[in-house]
Amino acid sequence: MGSNILPRLQALRAALKEKGLGGLLVSTPENRRYLSGFTGSAGYLLVTQADALLATDFRYVEQAGNQSPEFRVVHMGAGNGWFLQLLSETGARRVGFESENISVALHKRLAQALKESDGTGTGKPRLVATSNIVDELRAYKDWEEMRLLQRAIDISDGAMNSVAPTIRPGQTETEVAWRLEVAMRELGAEGPSFDTIVAAGPNGALPHHRAGDTVIQKGEPIVIDMGAKYQGYCSDLTRTIIIGTPDETFRRVYDTVLGAQLTAIATVQAGMTGAQADGLARKVIEVAGHGEQFGHSLGHGVGLAVHEFPRVGPNSPGLLQEGMAFTIEPGIYISGWGGVRIEDVVVLEKSGARVLSKAIKQDKVGG
Amino acid sequence: MGSNILPRLQALRAALKEKGLGGLLVSTPENRRYLSGFTGSAGYLLVTQADALLATDFRYVEQAGNQSPEFRVVHMGAGNGWFLQLLSETGARRVGFESENISVALHKRLAQALKESDGTGTGKPRLVATSNIVDELRAYKDWEEMRLLQRAIDISDGAMNSVAPTIRPGQTETEVAWRLEVAMRELGAEGPSFDTIVAAGPNGALPHHRAGDTVIQKGEPIVIDMGAKYQGYCSDLTRTIIIGTPDETFRRVYDTVLGAQLTAIATVQAGMTGAQADGLARKVIEVAGHGEQFGHSLGHGVGLAVHEFPRVGPNSPGLLQEGMAFTIEPGIYISGWGGVRIEDVVVLEKSGARVLSKAIKQDKVGG
Repeated sequence: MGSNILPRLQALRAALKEKGLGGLLVSTPENRRYLSGFTGSAGYLLVTQADALLATDFRYVEQAGNQSPEFRVVHMGAGNGWFLQLLSETGARRVGFESENISVALHKRLAQALKESDGTGTGKPRLVATSNIVDELRAYKDWEEMRLLQRAIDISDGAMNSVAPTIRPGQTETEVAWRLEVAMRELGAEGPSFDTIVAAGPNGALPHHRAGDTVIQKGEPIVIDMGAKYQGYCSDLTRTIIIGTPDETFRRVYDTVLGAQLTAIATVQAGMTGAQADGLARKVIEVAGHGEQFGHSLGHGVGLAVHEFPRVGPNSPGLLQEGMAFTIEPGIYISGWGGVRIEDVVVLEKSGARVLSKAIKQDKVGG
Repeated sequence: MGSNILPRLQALRAALKEKGLGGLLVSTPENRRYLSGFTGSAGYLLVTQADALLATDFRYVEQAGNQSPEFRVVHMGAGNGWFLQLLSETGARRVGFESENISVALHKRLAQALKESDGTGTGKPRLVATSNIVDELRAYKDWEEMRLLQRAIDISDGAMNSVAPTIRPGQTETEVAWRLEVAMRELGAEGPSFDTIVAAGPNGALPHHRAGDTVIQKGEPIVIDMGAKYQGYCSDLTRTIIIGTPDETFRRVYDTVLGAQLTAIATVQAGMTGAQADGLARKVIEVAGHGEQFGHSLGHGVGLAVHEFPRVGPNSPGLLQEGMAFTIEPGIYISGWGGVRIEDVVVLEKSGARVLSKAIKQDKVGG
């Protein structure tokens, strides 16, 4: 891990300098892991230009020392003493906090602790709300992240390729979901990166229907959306399959979604906004008359979190850049009938999107 | 579900009245599910004396309508319009928000939306920070919750009882954890309620070590901490086992922990504070000379979250009351050697604690 941590800290320090911050209090779990390698479920980082501290509780002190040699580990006791200790050890003054993660109640407690601490006036540290500083760094994947992300993707691809051909009418959604999860574990996953979705027939019209007792029928579309977690990295993969002969609606809807997905993959470029990328697929679906039935974003970044930067939706002004990894997953949902969604993970390179997912995709319906 | 929702809403409304609040904006996922039955991963409730609204996005609108007949469902589009809509539909004025859950950034956006909305002065709704109103209701389990919690507990008990006797030297922690998870799924779990811990030998000194590549050895203590999720309810169970002949340290430490646990179970009573309950076991461990090596709380409430109210630790002033369910899990951790922790879930009744866990516990070492 060590070799990857220093460049990440360096990038963060450059960002802090640019924003005029003396340090950043990192509380978001994925950001904490990204910057320190520490995998425990509780703790805070304080990163300044000269220092890097990790505060965690009794349960994790030993583990933090092993996983985060670049950090000095501070033992958090009860109360907010750890916070004042981090500040006094670093001498940081303008200290950013992650306002999307820190709750109103915790912020109040930290501000109160500061207020009651020694020192007055300009000598006292100040807490400054920040948004997504580390999250924006995480949108770009370094080589180590790409290795782990690809591994997670390979696992869900392998599970999909082995289980999908064995799905039969009469099986329940839950049965299929469990077989997919077992296959992912056998291929090395720590677990699923989110609750596996198997949505048969009309359930497919609910984009986040989970697997239930519904029995799979012949001739109905089945939406399978799944991911594996590997060393913290999340994959995300959707295929829509059908057993038996599809009806005319399915043929049309499937081809539209696949056409929209392939169009977006073929034409997305670094320098586009997320909204422009979204539009590449959305236009295909709108022209086919299904615009109202594609009610979510085209995609989202994926890495230590299954949903992260960059944003790739109709209202996403941020730029997509080389080195960013994200999903491309258009869908069409028809209430009472079902849905079709097809999703791959891509990474943006100089020449465009490189598709990281290799799970088999029906290139024609019934094929 | 319906029959359980109304009494919960009634209890919340009584609490709001007492606190002089016109309504509560519920954002914590477990609180949302508890009060509405809605299992989707995104959404907000606004509960007033006369009304109950559920705002969720496109993906979940249909599901919310099915799962939450007691609520009117509002479709959340982009932006903060949903929030103003909830307020205007209910006419709520002093509206509480969950300050432990709402982030500083979201609070700022909601306050800004309010500020920019129509109406002035006293006619405008106000956001009021609240802490744990619903969480405190959830500490008491109603009969439906007890049924689901017992089911989750039975599942992890069954998995422990079937897998523990098959653990052999040479197996890895990860292998054992996976067999436990498979057993829980086969017994009907939705999944584990947290990452299964299997900590062999010295790893047991890290109270939240997860399962890794460590190979299980003869004569070393193995800490297994696991739980099942069943219809959202979480179980939590720890056993410490040993294969082969334990050394003198293990005998002494195991008997101390078991003695402390049984003491607490036998003597905890409604009306004690969490700190008093914690002290029941802590005193036993201190007398045995291991006080410094029991660095966590005696227990915690368990239900829709694996850690919830009531608090049962050395600094917990809140009262334990009839109908509350929580864990009792003392431990001793010795760096370089390992650990022993034993955990059951109990519910407080008139006559004291009733133990809900039935997993086999070694009543004497080597037994």
